[in-house]
Amino acid sequence: MATVGIVGAGVAGLHLGLALRAADVDVTLYTEHPLEDLAGARLLNTVAHHHPMLERERALGVHHWPAEEYGYAAHHHYLGGAEPVRFTGHFTNPSCAVDHRLYLPRVAADLADRGAKPVVADIGPRDLARLGAQHDLVVVASGRGPLSGLFARRPEHCPHDAPRRLLCAGLYTGVRAPEPAGVGISVAPGHGELLEIPILSRHGPVTALLLENEPDGDLAGLASLPYDDDPARFHRAVLDALAVHHPATRERVEEREFALTHPLDLLQGGVIPAVREDYLPLGDEKFALALGDAHVVVDPVMGQGANLAAYSAAVVAAEIVTDTVYDEQFCLRVARAREEVLLAGSAWTNLMLDPPPRIPELLRALAADQRRADEFTTNFDHPDRQWRLLATPRRQREFLAGDRAEGDRRTTWSIQRSAAPY
Amino acid sequence: MATVGIVGAGVAGLHLGLALRAADVDVTLYTEHPLEDLAGARLLNTVAHHHPMLERERALGVHHWPAEEYGYAAHHHYLGGAEPVRFTGHFTNPSCAVDHRLYLPRVAADLADRGAKPVVADIGPRDLARLGAQHDLVVVASGRGPLSGLFARRPEHCPHDAPRRLLCAGLYTGVRAPEPAGVGISVAPGHGELLEIPILSRHGPVTALLLENEPDGDLAGLASLPYDDDPARFHRAVLDALAVHHPATRERVEEREFALTHPLDLLQGGVIPAVREDYLPLGDEKFALALGDAHVVVDPVMGQGANLAAYSAAVVAAEIVTDTVYDEQFCLRVARAREEVLLAGSAWTNLMLDPPPRIPELLRALAADQRRADEFTTNFDHPDRQWRLLATPRRQREFLAGDRAEGDRRTTWSIQRSAAPY
Repeated sequence: MATVGIVGAGVAGLHLGLALRAADVDVTLYTEHPLEDLAGARLLNTVAHHHPMLERERALGVHHWPAEEYGYAAHHHYLGGAEPVRFTGHFTNPSCAVDHRLYLPRVAADLADRGAKPVVADIGPRDLARLGAQHDLVVVASGRGPLSGLFARRPEHCPHDAPRRLLCAGLYTGVRAPEPAGVGISVAPGHGELLEIPILSRHGPVTALLLENEPDGDLAGLASLPYDDDPARFHRAVLDALAVHHPATRERVEEREFALTHPLDLLQGGVIPAVREDYLPLGDEKFALALGDAHVVVDPVMGQGANLAAYSAAVVAAEIVTDTVYDEQFCLRVARAREEVLLAGSAWTNLMLDPPPRIPELLRALAADQRRADEFTTNFDHPDRQWRLLATPRRQREFLAGDRAEGDRRTTWSIQRSAAPY
Repeated sequence: MATVGIVGAGVAGLHLGLALRAADVDVTLYTEHPLEDLAGARLLNTVAHHHPMLERERALGVHHWPAEEYGYAAHHHYLGGAEPVRFTGHFTNPSCAVDHRLYLPRVAADLADRGAKPVVADIGPRDLARLGAQHDLVVVASGRGPLSGLFARRPEHCPHDAPRRLLCAGLYTGVRAPEPAGVGISVAPGHGELLEIPILSRHGPVTALLLENEPDGDLAGLASLPYDDDPARFHRAVLDALAVHHPATRERVEEREFALTHPLDLLQGGVIPAVREDYLPLGDEKFALALGDAHVVVDPVMGQGANLAAYSAAVVAAEIVTDTVYDEQFCLRVARAREEVLLAGSAWTNLMLDPPPRIPELLRALAADQRRADEFTTNFDHPDRQWRLLATPRRQREFLAGDRAEGDRRTTWSIQRSAAPY
């Protein structure tokens, strides 16, 4: 039976570990700190888990926060500018956001219960050959720290070498939920986006506000505005930002109750999107495979990061279990198997970060077309399908004008797919 | 709804057409001659349809010759040399060989009944732009004639620029079936192989003998030995070849009854294996996709050609039905989706044509290991799995010595797979 060393215990590493343990593969999980420490750490992100990821969690037996109870099934869009538009798109199945400082330690405990060996160690590039000697395969699933830049960037998929948005993400009280429960996606042309996300935290259900601010826009300063020095000034600045640029959220804010839930429930900074090589030889016929943020990093604006990581982990686990030798042929098969979805998630996100005029046109068209608005929303579950609809102006035209209904596409797809493979 | 022009009505074109019509896609089928003409033509090949292809035929409603009645489920191996070995491997599900001069016209009639438009026309490279203007997508599924060399060879997957075997394929009476019914695979080191195939012809069940002769071996002359001039001399030469190099078949020949079933039931020549580019721009945002022998040609020694073509047709049909725009992105997706199986079928066949010493070692090991002999046999259904086991010496060692049973691999695979994709 294979032995796999996984470096990093974010979504990618944990999902991989769980899927491998379900197939009785020997797993060692290397983390820099004990996972329990995360509970008291700074906010990690504000990502929702979409239906395919939730389905995998159900199958793995780690779906501890029922999406039916804590989740949502709508995206409320607001597009600002001279003639603002609003519309709501509906998911076929609910998504759910849980603070990862709750989620990750709980799932890590599940993984430990199932026999993965935890090792607390600071793994750097020089340690990988040693890990290679100890395992049949090493998976680098560490998006921060010394290994995050290990795999070479693939320039053809990396249009940016600096963050395209300056981020200010926090958990707040005082934002009344929309009807129906859902994520708000507000676009302020030239200034950026606001994602408003119902999220379960250690304080209970609260609202995450993820301000995605263009570096040259009005709100760029929020990404570096100190909170601890003067919380009232910080709250004031966020409220002003909402009032001017994201009124669809501002109108549901109860000003007296509006506050960050805790000084650590704030994350400011930026992400440099990247698609990196899939693998690296470690010598002696051993390889290290990149997973999660060590492989593909997306800006959080479309909420794809954790979902792509979990998808990639599922593909890697399936390929590990199928194969017996973890050589370059194996690595290439993994690369091919996951490429379409991962590149689609990356390319779609990058398109939305630098929207050509056809993107606001798209939103306006969706506002007048409920069926397609719902398809666009449900495709947050399926970046490959989304990219198929939006990759080029011609594809977008066909999506908006074509005579084939989404139901047709989907149904036929699954019928045909089941007949196709060996 | 899309309109697709298919050039060529072999297995690739017909399977594609049937799958597209099942999804109500508009199909025009271009052939050089009316399909009925095939019935009186020279033997086309001696290929068996393996279980995945038969399953597709069942799903498409064109499984006219039940494999349970006309098929077989065993490979009888004979490896000659100083210490000959014999062993039998069993398929999980039966394969079936039907003379394509029966099969193709019947299936073409099914396709016409289902609304594909037949056009008899001699399509050359200069006609493709016109076809592109008439259809959303053109598929070139013509392995012979002026279009067969249209797509550029991919040199990294084309080790040969001349046939590696000189072929002499014919249908014969007078060969008693082995027990259980099955294909004989006889290897005469340095001289080539004999495939002995139970096949349903217009004469009823007969035996196909496919002599795959090395150009420098004793039997090379059979590929050009005339039949019509002196049938007795031809029969004598084949019998002598069997006696000296393929005794496991010779011992079941009743000499007085041994004869070619008809002068046209003989095909002599050779195949240059090739893997070609997946697609070609036709201008004006239209593309031509390569399918079947126009895309990947394999020597018939492992019986993969028609099966790869049918598989590729199923993938292409699924991608056509899923998509709405047949641009380069579509073509790249098709290429990625079918690449693993097609390259595996090609690489495995090429390995067997130039066998390194580990291949006879493999056969000797299988002769002593029924479970792995059966896995090797069943993997004629699954060239990607076969290649996973045999691609490198390390992989072959792991296959023969590894502690994981084939059942384990397969079961876990299907469980994991169903959980993995979006």
